[in-house]
Amino acid sequence: MHFLARVFVSLKPAVNDPQGITVLRALQRLGFSGVQGVRVGKYLEVRLEAADRAAAERQVAEMCGKLLANPVIEQSRFEVAEEAPATH
Amino acid sequence: MHFLARVFVSLKPAVNDPQGITVLRALQRLGFSGVQGVRVGKYLEVRLEAADRAAAERQVAEMCGKLLANPVIEQSRFEVAEEAPATH
Repeated sequence: MHFLARVFVSLKPAVNDPQGITVLRALQRLGFSGVQGVRVGKYLEVRLEAADRAAAERQVAEMCGKLLANPVIEQSRFEVAEEAPATH
Repeated sequence: MHFLARVFVSLKPAVNDPQGITVLRALQRLGFSGVQGVRVGKYLEVRLEAADRAAAERQVAEMCGKLLANPVIEQSRFEVAEEAPATH
């Protein structure tokens, strides 16, 4: 079975985010005066084959712990959805 | 009213993604043999004040078009949710 995992990796709330501050200032300079804060993280789409959804979720959780997120400063969450086999 | 917008920016499907290929190979090297493809994008959390949800959505759509995504090579989508006023 084919699955698409959407993985969201963001800095933990206590971690300083200079990239987010830069985007915040740029938005304010563009006239978006209502913007109060910006945090920048990563968004990954992982396509994988697994026996079932539970197996896919187990694998993605392991990927997050081993490679996709740095557990010291980042937190991750993900959603797994079944997908038709890739045609590309 | 306070809103939290979650913005997902990803490369258009036809655009080459060397970062995604690097992550794919690293996952395969770690033993995740079922992984077939990885695309890497950005995930932004934008906190903003707006009169209502429609106004917040309009602003976030404009931010995506003007700054958060490069419309030539990237596509973006977002979700806006009402939020209790920030206490930090």
